[in-house]
Amino acid sequence: MKQFLSFSGIDVISLVKEALFLKKNPFLFKHIGKNKTIGFVFFNASLRTRLSSQKAALYLGCETWILNIDKDSWKIEMSDGGVMKKTQEHIKEAIGVMSLYCDILAVRIFPNLKDKRYDFHESLLKKIQYYSSVPVVSLESATLHPLQSLADAMTIEEFKPKKERVKVVLSWAPHPISLPQSVPNSFAQCISKLGYTDLVITHPKGYELDDNFINGAHIFYNQNEALKGADFIYAKNWSSFKNYGEIFSMDPKWTIATEKISNHPKFMHCLPVRRNLIVEDAVLDASLVYHEAENRIFSNQAVFKTLLKNL
Amino acid sequence: MKQFLSFSGIDVISLVKEALFLKKNPFLFKHIGKNKTIGFVFFNASLRTRLSSQKAALYLGCETWILNIDKDSWKIEMSDGGVMKKTQEHIKEAIGVMSLYCDILAVRIFPNLKDKRYDFHESLLKKIQYYSSVPVVSLESATLHPLQSLADAMTIEEFKPKKERVKVVLSWAPHPISLPQSVPNSFAQCISKLGYTDLVITHPKGYELDDNFINGAHIFYNQNEALKGADFIYAKNWSSFKNYGEIFSMDPKWTIATEKISNHPKFMHCLPVRRNLIVEDAVLDASLVYHEAENRIFSNQAVFKTLLKNL
Amino acid sequence: MKQFLSFSGIDVISLVKEALFLKKNPFLFKHIGKNKTIGFVFFNASLRTRLSSQKAALYLGCETWILNIDKDSWKIEMSDGGVMKKTQEHIKEAIGVMSLYCDILAVRIFPNLKDKRYDFHESLLKKIQYYSSVPVVSLESATLHPLQSLADAMTIEEFKPKKERVKVVLSWAPHPISLPQSVPNSFAQCISKLGYTDLVITHPKGYELDDNFINGAHIFYNQNEALKGADFIYAKNWSSFKNYGEIFSMDPKWTIATEKISNHPKFMHCLPVRRNLIVEDAVLDASLVYHEAENRIFSNQAVFKTLLKNL
Repeated sequence: MKQFLSFSGIDVISLVKEALFLKKNPFLFKHIGKNKTIGFVFFNASLRTRLSSQKAALYLGCETWILNIDKDSWKIEMSDGGVMKKTQEHIKEAIGVMSLYCDILAVRIFPNLKDKRYDFHESLLKKIQYYSSVPVVSLESATLHPLQSLADAMTIEEFKPKKERVKVVLSWAPHPISLPQSVPNSFAQCISKLGYTDLVITHPKGYELDDNFINGAHIFYNQNEALKGADFIYAKNWSSFKNYGEIFSMDPKWTIATEKISNHPKFMHCLPVRRNLIVEDAVLDASLVYHEAENRIFSNQAVFKTLLKNL
Repeated sequence: MKQFLSFSGIDVISLVKEALFLKKNPFLFKHIGKNKTIGFVFFNASLRTRLSSQKAALYLGCETWILNIDKDSWKIEMSDGGVMKKTQEHIKEAIGVMSLYCDILAVRIFPNLKDKRYDFHESLLKKIQYYSSVPVVSLESATLHPLQSLADAMTIEEFKPKKERVKVVLSWAPHPISLPQSVPNSFAQCISKLGYTDLVITHPKGYELDDNFINGAHIFYNQNEALKGADFIYAKNWSSFKNYGEIFSMDPKWTIATEKISNHPKFMHCLPVRRNLIVEDAVLDASLVYHEAENRIFSNQAVFKTLLKNL
Repeated sequence: MKQFLSFSGIDVISLVKEALFLKKNPFLFKHIGKNKTIGFVFFNASLRTRLSSQKAALYLGCETWILNIDKDSWKIEMSDGGVMKKTQEHIKEAIGVMSLYCDILAVRIFPNLKDKRYDFHESLLKKIQYYSSVPVVSLESATLHPLQSLADAMTIEEFKPKKERVKVVLSWAPHPISLPQSVPNSFAQCISKLGYTDLVITHPKGYELDDNFINGAHIFYNQNEALKGADFIYAKNWSSFKNYGEIFSMDPKWTIATEKISNHPKFMHCLPVRRNLIVEDAVLDASLVYHEAENRIFSNQAVFKTLLKNL
């Protein structure tokens, strides 16, 4: 592993095992990060990612710095070749310089949700990777949130029932503002690599995800149908891929309500979650969300540890 | 001590002694915080609290992280049971998750100064404490600022004259914006526990503090009367408790001017202070405010040390 | 060295040598900062300064804290003697208190570019130095950016051609917003102390720098003339000193274009830089800017190390 931007070429099962081992032995590798620095660059807001990453770095004995691009620093130019009349610093210099001040550069950069081609080409993340002189870790990019999905995979591994195949339902749920598809894309991609999951995706028509991520998962437009026999239900809102970034539905029937999960599947969500819009209070309060959030520390630690060893 | 939210059940004299001991031996307990993390969460601005807390944590060998809720993270929902159309994350998940990433959670959360019942019930602090899985330390809440008052008590202990009883005057002073009552409440509560102080409170009519905090202190509406024979004068603005959050007076006669302190009481203020509104330049420049500010490090350290030992 | 605010009384050659030694041996002095704290106070945005300073502190084994005045803290009053109706904390208390929480106080504070007398008296930096109880390091002030210039001097030392005298051209370039003169002032002052440089300054009429900083450098109003035989070209925009803070020209002929540097001088800039306004893409992409940025770590480290040893 020379960087961590997606699950391409990643042995998810080994990484999940490593992360679960670190959860039991968090301080065992505190020597690995000695005299090393992980730089965290946020182009967007963050709570879990920011804090769990720092915790992971501390467990590895690493120094860290954090930069909130918009608040601490300069207005960044993302496009090439123009006369920079309105922006103060080009992404090339910003990333090139930041990578001089750390050994790993971890970056969160959301999609614009307007230009599908640009977003799904991961144009910005590719630039960052190209301009950085050190390994890059994605803290969520235009199309993927791999460290989140790794924590989710850990949680499924910990809570899976004792049976050969496990049914996981990824359900769309309503939300008032246009959101990225990074979490569902990444979840589908990662979960399928566990080997024992049957992934079912349910959403209203028009919310189909990009085929490249879902690995032939079954799609149901009828949520109740999809939820039958589910072992896990992972709820999430996303905006349309087809009519890129649009919101077609706010239908409250898609909210995950208590009566929908009478067979007691384990409820999961990446957080932050809007209560009684995505999910009803009672379902959330009995969910695995804190386990997922705690596992963020160790999915991060597993990735950082691997990268630090390879420096 | 399992948390630190008020002086209820706290032996103030012992804690002051401990803090003064740490001031002389700041690095003596650097092993106590090894592999521990204190998370600092600011819902509001901070200078002294932010920096003195970090310094205290460093003296204890602790790791720290800081989160400015509004700037770094998501818009937080404080009320229960609603459909979260406008807010992004509920305080339950926010606190629950943050407490997974630290061993002590230190939080600053100001009152709204509109709903007295809500503020004086410490509704928000109680929620935070309830949702946190680790000990909570108040960095100032709706009704109290105990770490400040502990530093103030240290300062009185250091500078008290050699006599049996010490007269401490807490005086209201004018200010253009509605301020909380947390500092005066907390000061009155804490100082009375030192045993040797006679507390006098002076303010214009209508600025009476909540009886529950002032422990029967004498109240004077005549500031000059109150100041007679004072050993210490602690100035502070606060808004009305009775007509909750209101400002009745900006009377400059209440500003602490040089001629009012001809008997040379020691002047104290928690800072930040508006010069020539709360207090005249000459009085402030000869005051104990830097001593109070420096003691913030060690009042914090005493509390963190006690909590870390009990983890 | 008891502080670091300018090159007055500084042996630049020794400091450059020290910094270049640290670049080869960054961890050699990790014991020097043990139990020490450097506080970083930003009144203005920062990327390189913020991150390279932290990296330097880490190399010295120092603890650090960072305060963004406007975002984390209170509105600061800069003038004396007034009634603080609109500001929350006076610079005297702010600095006095912050210096209680660290062993070195590093501060960035830009000029207002309106009141030349105030800016060029370094009124604010002098106040900060006066109110601080610990050594102050300038992270850029109204008239100087010495840590940047020290990194630039390191870069010239590393890349100078093998000849007796080296020609360095400091060229003004167009920019849409009024910028300080701190970088060119500081560069001129520092570079002249290297001993082997011939400094030439070129800019449109009306952009003359303050004589006190340029040490009799030759001034050309014809950029092409100035660039003849240059070994290094350092481009930078600045606003007028004479008509203080004004912008007279946005003439694109002053942009450093490929055809202007046919003799291949090494291009330098402090960053952030506006591409195709200050300099054309091709020139920037073949420049020394990353070397300068990397050297920021070690110019900082050299200064902090010297100050820490003298504590």
